[in-house]
Amino acid sequence: MPLLDLLLEAGNLKRLPRTGWLLRGVPNPESIADHSYRVALITLFLADELKVKGVDVNVERALKMALLHDLAEARITDIPLTAQYYIDKGKAEKKAAMELFIKTPKPEEYFRLWREYEEELSLEGRLVKFADKLEMLIQACEYERAGFSNLDEFWGALDSLRESEFYEHFRELVDGLAERRKGR
Amino acid sequence: MPLLDLLLEAGNLKRLPRTGWLLRGVPNPESIADHSYRVALITLFLADELKVKGVDVNVERALKMALLHDLAEARITDIPLTAQYYIDKGKAEKKAAMELFIKTPKPEEYFRLWREYEEELSLEGRLVKFADKLEMLIQACEYERAGFSNLDEFWGALDSLRESEFYEHFRELVDGLAERRKGR
Amino acid sequence: MPLLDLLLEAGNLKRLPRTGWLLRGVPNPESIADHSYRVALITLFLADELKVKGVDVNVERALKMALLHDLAEARITDIPLTAQYYIDKGKAEKKAAMELFIKTPKPEEYFRLWREYEEELSLEGRLVKFADKLEMLIQACEYERAGFSNLDEFWGALDSLRESEFYEHFRELVDGLAERRKGR
Amino acid sequence: MPLLDLLLEAGNLKRLPRTGWLLRGVPNPESIADHSYRVALITLFLADELKVKGVDVNVERALKMALLHDLAEARITDIPLTAQYYIDKGKAEKKAAMELFIKTPKPEEYFRLWREYEEELSLEGRLVKFADKLEMLIQACEYERAGFSNLDEFWGALDSLRESEFYEHFRELVDGLAERRKGR
Amino acid sequence: MPLLDLLLEAGNLKRLPRTGWLLRGVPNPESIADHSYRVALITLFLADELKVKGVDVNVERALKMALLHDLAEARITDIPLTAQYYIDKGKAEKKAAMELFIKTPKPEEYFRLWREYEEELSLEGRLVKFADKLEMLIQACEYERAGFSNLDEFWGALDSLRESEFYEHFRELVDGLAERRKGR
Amino acid sequence: MPLLDLLLEAGNLKRLPRTGWLLRGVPNPESIADHSYRVALITLFLADELKVKGVDVNVERALKMALLHDLAEARITDIPLTAQYYIDKGKAEKKAAMELFIKTPKPEEYFRLWREYEEELSLEGRLVKFADKLEMLIQACEYERAGFSNLDEFWGALDSLRESEFYEHFRELVDGLAERRKGR
Repeated sequence: MPLLDLLLEAGNLKRLPRTGWLLRGVPNPESIADHSYRVALITLFLADELKVKGVDVNVERALKMALLHDLAEARITDIPLTAQYYIDKGKAEKKAAMELFIKTPKPEEYFRLWREYEEELSLEGRLVKFADKLEMLIQACEYERAGFSNLDEFWGALDSLRESEFYEHFRELVDGLAERRKGR
Repeated sequence: MPLLDLLLEAGNLKRLPRTGWLLRGVPNPESIADHSYRVALITLFLADELKVKGVDVNVERALKMALLHDLAEARITDIPLTAQYYIDKGKAEKKAAMELFIKTPKPEEYFRLWREYEEELSLEGRLVKFADKLEMLIQACEYERAGFSNLDEFWGALDSLRESEFYEHFRELVDGLAERRKGR
Repeated sequence: MPLLDLLLEAGNLKRLPRTGWLLRGVPNPESIADHSYRVALITLFLADELKVKGVDVNVERALKMALLHDLAEARITDIPLTAQYYIDKGKAEKKAAMELFIKTPKPEEYFRLWREYEEELSLEGRLVKFADKLEMLIQACEYERAGFSNLDEFWGALDSLRESEFYEHFRELVDGLAERRKGR
Repeated sequence: MPLLDLLLEAGNLKRLPRTGWLLRGVPNPESIADHSYRVALITLFLADELKVKGVDVNVERALKMALLHDLAEARITDIPLTAQYYIDKGKAEKKAAMELFIKTPKPEEYFRLWREYEEELSLEGRLVKFADKLEMLIQACEYERAGFSNLDEFWGALDSLRESEFYEHFRELVDGLAERRKGR
Repeated sequence: MPLLDLLLEAGNLKRLPRTGWLLRGVPNPESIADHSYRVALITLFLADELKVKGVDVNVERALKMALLHDLAEARITDIPLTAQYYIDKGKAEKKAAMELFIKTPKPEEYFRLWREYEEELSLEGRLVKFADKLEMLIQACEYERAGFSNLDEFWGALDSLRESEFYEHFRELVDGLAERRKGR
Repeated sequence: MPLLDLLLEAGNLKRLPRTGWLLRGVPNPESIADHSYRVALITLFLADELKVKGVDVNVERALKMALLHDLAEARITDIPLTAQYYIDKGKAEKKAAMELFIKTPKPEEYFRLWREYEEELSLEGRLVKFADKLEMLIQACEYERAGFSNLDEFWGALDSLRESEFYEHFRELVDGLAERRKGR
């Protein structure tokens, strides 16, 4: 049963730590699934907010991307930046994603969505990228509030949020997060 | 910034363990967010499979329910069965869900979806309930494969999957899971 | 064997984390049993100190209260403050405590002691409440010394210790703890 | 403030694992404080049961012993059997216990109680020894139910429970535990 | 200070889990450093045993290989088998190893040793490979004794131990391990 | 098979935490094996650096000492300073080391090396002591960078590094580490 195999494999995302935090000394950090869950939640809220503001966004497509964007890490694991200099992570994930999606009811559609996200080819793809970075910064903020340090590097992503086309819509959210960090 | 507050609160779902496993002696079990992620993933695959089979299901609404269905546990925590005899969990979650959704762009819609799931008022609501139970059993299967025992109780949910209107569509999946358990 | 069942259930207190710390980002925080142990130890020392100072306190009754005061959490879990707005924790614990004590040799006595503590009806009950808060602050102090932050909220309990009838007797202890915190 | 120092030191009992389980591969096993809490709880129930049965036992003294019996491990740690062949643990604990008790309101009394337990000089001392072993077996039973194995060695303690003067009073409890193990 | 940087980077080996166990559900499994330590220890004992038996082996070179063989994982992490289908791990490790060794007093020698191990070019290189596999099986044996299952796959390495040139010398060790497994 | 027994016992070093960190509140700190691995790695680099500088040092002997120096803790555990006031750790380790080495191919040689390290009888013995302390400080530095505090005590070892005969050779390394700490 290919779908069952896939769902069991997806369980790896619960067991695998996000290595960025692990390497900086956070004990038992969040899992990849933990991260993906909040990315999807953020995507939902931002997409619906955009609709309220009159932007034409396809919520269903955005949510699908959010749920599928890290699925290939069930095989590839969360390869950290230190390794990406030696490994073509994008290429590996692309191949793994394709092979995983074959076990689902809509392989072509899912792969098309995955590429849209990966290469930021559509509004929804770019929105999920925005949500992905925002999620990471919210987590960084939480770890810092809890007392962990050595996480400055992550905050470089703040600039890319501010340069995004979505910043005008979510300025309050992004700046609010930056404020909270200072207020530590 | 109410939405930022909500997203930070949602971080609790990463920190809070699923108490069912914890009480049966699984050390560092999955988080609530871990569970919710795979529920959403299963919902996506099952909904798309139903569409392929010609069933008229609204994938977007189903995904929203899956992502929102346990959000209130960010405040309530994963109250185990042993406690539910003394606590009206449904009532508590309902109130907490309402107060959380107020911080989002679409409080009424989200609350309506939440109720649809909770009370199984729509096809999508019942599908997410099915996905929620299926996810739990897949996790039970994984813990048992890893060597943990004392999880028989959970497998009672298999009956309710088999009595569901979706069983005819996902018989292979449900029976495949039951097979795997035996094959341990 | 009801008493054996109860003792096995009490094992939950070792497995269940104190959620106050967990929600603020302390990884693998103390268990409920960890906390209860030191509450009982503090109760012992404070009660004996009071006796030395000529206060008439029943040490046996105080120790029994300390050991029993959180037993119901074996069923209810450590419901955090965020949830208590939606849940009548006191009522739930009362019912669970009664049903647990039925499995012991002295149900009525234990339940009377439990109520004395919960409602601060006797000197001993109030002393154990004092020990309960003091224990929490000592733990907060330890977590802060170890580098965790975000625990300010807990220190509100310092005021209630200072307003207590026992403050005159344990001024040095309470103020010493507050000093240590500053000295961080 | 010597008493505050002592209470902070007692915090070590929450952080230190029980090494018997750790060495047999239980990940994140119970702490010394976890164990001590249930020993005290068992002592309470057994002592009160004995009183109901007409045995003259001093509950207060028994509870004090239970709470103090492992306190010296805050300095000594839970030295496992493999080490006790090379280390005179009894002697080390005795010295450490004395030095810790000096910081309390009743050093002499506490040390006398500690010795009564250690050398089983009184009914209460022997009862707490009985509770100490029983607690360990209940924990072993729980770990085995959860799926851990390699714990046979611990069950040797069952014989010493059955040879104890308290066996006649708690036969049902001891045999019930042995039954449960078989029923695994 | 390049050497200091390298030593700090080597700290990653303590923080990074061995993913083979993690993916099969062992919670908090051994670190890469844990594994490397026992590989070095085994190498020491086997090399000295070979010398006792009259085999001409260079212990110093073997120990250096054992200590350096997984150092590149400080950057690459322990990429599991599921990922190696998509990633050329060998190539990545080779490049990372070179760049790490540049920070040491003897880059060329260390790289030559690393290659000797990786490509099994010398007796010492093959011995460390043998020790690497043996270590993994001893760990598998320990996890199984502790109650974990789902580790059958790893035992395939037993065959390669038995086909090795060293099997004649360490037959008792290899067969003894296989025996112990059966005796579970 | 005595050697297999020894290798299985050495597995304890992976399971046992370094108690110095544990007692100061670092959750899930490094294992003894984690520490020993980096001590051996440091020994390798320092010994080779000394050779480059024309100092006559036997690398093989140094590496053997590094790998064997904490092996006895597989039985004794990492007895913390608080306990060493009550326990003659050196004597216990000596006896345990002897009994463990009997299971190896070269008991006399290993015990001689162990004593050379323990009593700093040779250049290599003193070098491994230097590496042992340096490793601890690098770890302290990493925990502090990650946000943990309360580790000042450990830095006393900096003085002993500076008074060592090796300081002139590794001044840059030692001072670089001290700099980094300040730069926190």
